Amino acid sequence: MLLVKAEGARVRQSWCDLLAEFRPGLVARPYDAPGIRVEDATYALAWEPEPGWLASMPKLRVIFSLGAGVDHITRDPSWPRGVPLVRMGGEETGQRMGEYIAWACLTLLRDGRDHAIAQAERRWAYKVGEDTARDLTVGIMGMGTLGAAAVPMLRGLGYGVVGWSRTRKTVEGAESFAGPEELDAFLARSQVLVCLLPSTPETMGIVDAALLAKLPRGASLVNAARGPHVVLPDLLEALDSGQLSGAVLDVFDPEPLPVDSPLWAHPKVTVTPHVASVARRRERARYVADAIAAFEAGGPLPNLYDPERGY
Amino acid sequence: MLLVKAEGARVRQSWCDLLAEFRPGLVARPYDAPGIRVEDATYALAWEPEPGWLASMPKLRVIFSLGAGVDHITRDPSWPRGVPLVRMGGEETGQRMGEYIAWACLTLLRDGRDHAIAQAERRWAYKVGEDTARDLTVGIMGMGTLGAAAVPMLRGLGYGVVGWSRTRKTVEGAESFAGPEELDAFLARSQVLVCLLPSTPETMGIVDAALLAKLPRGASLVNAARGPHVVLPDLLEALDSGQLSGAVLDVFDPEPLPVDSPLWAHPKVTVTPHVASVARRRERARYVADAIAAFEAGGPLPNLYDPERGY
Repeated sequence: MLLVKAEGARVRQSWCDLLAEFRPGLVARPYDAPGIRVEDATYALAWEPEPGWLASMPKLRVIFSLGAGVDHITRDPSWPRGVPLVRMGGEETGQRMGEYIAWACLTLLRDGRDHAIAQAERRWAYKVGEDTARDLTVGIMGMGTLGAAAVPMLRGLGYGVVGWSRTRKTVEGAESFAGPEELDAFLARSQVLVCLLPSTPETMGIVDAALLAKLPRGASLVNAARGPHVVLPDLLEALDSGQLSGAVLDVFDPEPLPVDSPLWAHPKVTVTPHVASVARRRERARYVADAIAAFEAGGPLPNLYDPERGY
Repeated sequence: MLLVKAEGARVRQSWCDLLAEFRPGLVARPYDAPGIRVEDATYALAWEPEPGWLASMPKLRVIFSLGAGVDHITRDPSWPRGVPLVRMGGEETGQRMGEYIAWACLTLLRDGRDHAIAQAERRWAYKVGEDTARDLTVGIMGMGTLGAAAVPMLRGLGYGVVGWSRTRKTVEGAESFAGPEELDAFLARSQVLVCLLPSTPETMGIVDAALLAKLPRGASLVNAARGPHVVLPDLLEALDSGQLSGAVLDVFDPEPLPVDSPLWAHPKVTVTPHVASVARRRERARYVADAIAAFEAGGPLPNLYDPERGY
């Protein structure tokens, strides 16, 4: 039996229906369905599970995260570390993230925030920037499957691309930087910095004043990873000083972004509500069903959480 | 002598300086400089010239348009039809138009207008659409050099692309439709319709209720050509009925867009102030200087106006 913990009763039922469609024979149930015996669960598909919930499943074989990040699960002190934990993946997740990053980079390049403000004020404010995409290099910090999906899209628009990751990744079209010793060289090249890092204790607050100061003056920032990666007062100061010329932010700490946040009305900040890489439920259900099929046939699980890396 | 008619005294002087840099020996002057003898002009570089101004130059050898369109010149009843008229071109004009079209298509795909409205209201409004770029076909109406520059960018993002033009154009990555007899088939495929047509008597008002009705239901529109291509009441009705799901408009009739236009506050319309394909002045000056060099060496002029086509 697979238990689904997602937001909303209809959404949970939809997950169960889709999983049954893609893997007939799999019993999938909303975690709060009447008569559910949580101790019988062999699989769990979860978004922000209650602390202790996963630990109450002695027969649990695999945990599936509803998102590409797993921080919403591993922050439960009691989560069962011996059970394989699978991050959400699949081709559509990469496609959507690539689209979002391309849109964010073009929004920064082509003054999307200025145009949105002028439209709201019914003001015709002609503005054309100096650079084209061909003049700029995008630096992707966190070059995993999502970052790799963005590379050909950005190259097609004319951008140069550099990537930085914990261990060296070879992605066609992107110059590779790896490890702490190559971070500064990567940052010096990144005229648009895109944060796609996993959420781990090491990456919390990584985008701070010291890091932002290593970008070329007038650089811009896209955060499509997790809110706590960015130190908000440092970001605001870099925007005010002109070190940063703009930011497109999809993630915040906390979420939803509070109504009194200075980000909402900031003239250099575009806010989106954590929408960057959400694939259709149907495609995600297919990914989970395929992973269970592979697992039960004795094959490997995709996108496995590695406790040493923390993601 | 080349006379420059552009908006703003500093801009005119900058054009003259750049032209002198790229073609030493060429005397370039603002049209309103003291002591200018307009009858000595052999070249004119113009944006929205006063009616009669070009006709007052008996020695005029070439007219250069400051924009990709020439309607701002040919609407002068007295413009000298015997003088070659060159449309602005150059690689950067295509790059910028491609960037704008890619941004516009992604803004429509990824709910950019909804997010901008929500941000202005400090409202966290999670919304993710059904489609990815891979599910959609963009139809480019007017497949010239600007449209062709957009094709690889759109393909790189995952979109399918079809193109329609007066005469058949072969552009890699885009299925070609041509002439009035293939327009309906083209429209039926266009889930995002991009208008890049030249401004001629035949294309005025071409985007009307009849044309919009031939698009798939829920299609969207990008207009980066000229305002009069679109019949505004028909556009508004198509948006209200749901035949169109959204529009990104860069051009209007008249410009600047009047403060009381219903477009500014329309929840499905993104407005930008005619910025789609303006290349840097430096690159445009290089294009003009190169064209003059080729012309004086007895070579052909690029992007020549054809009176039969009307562009």
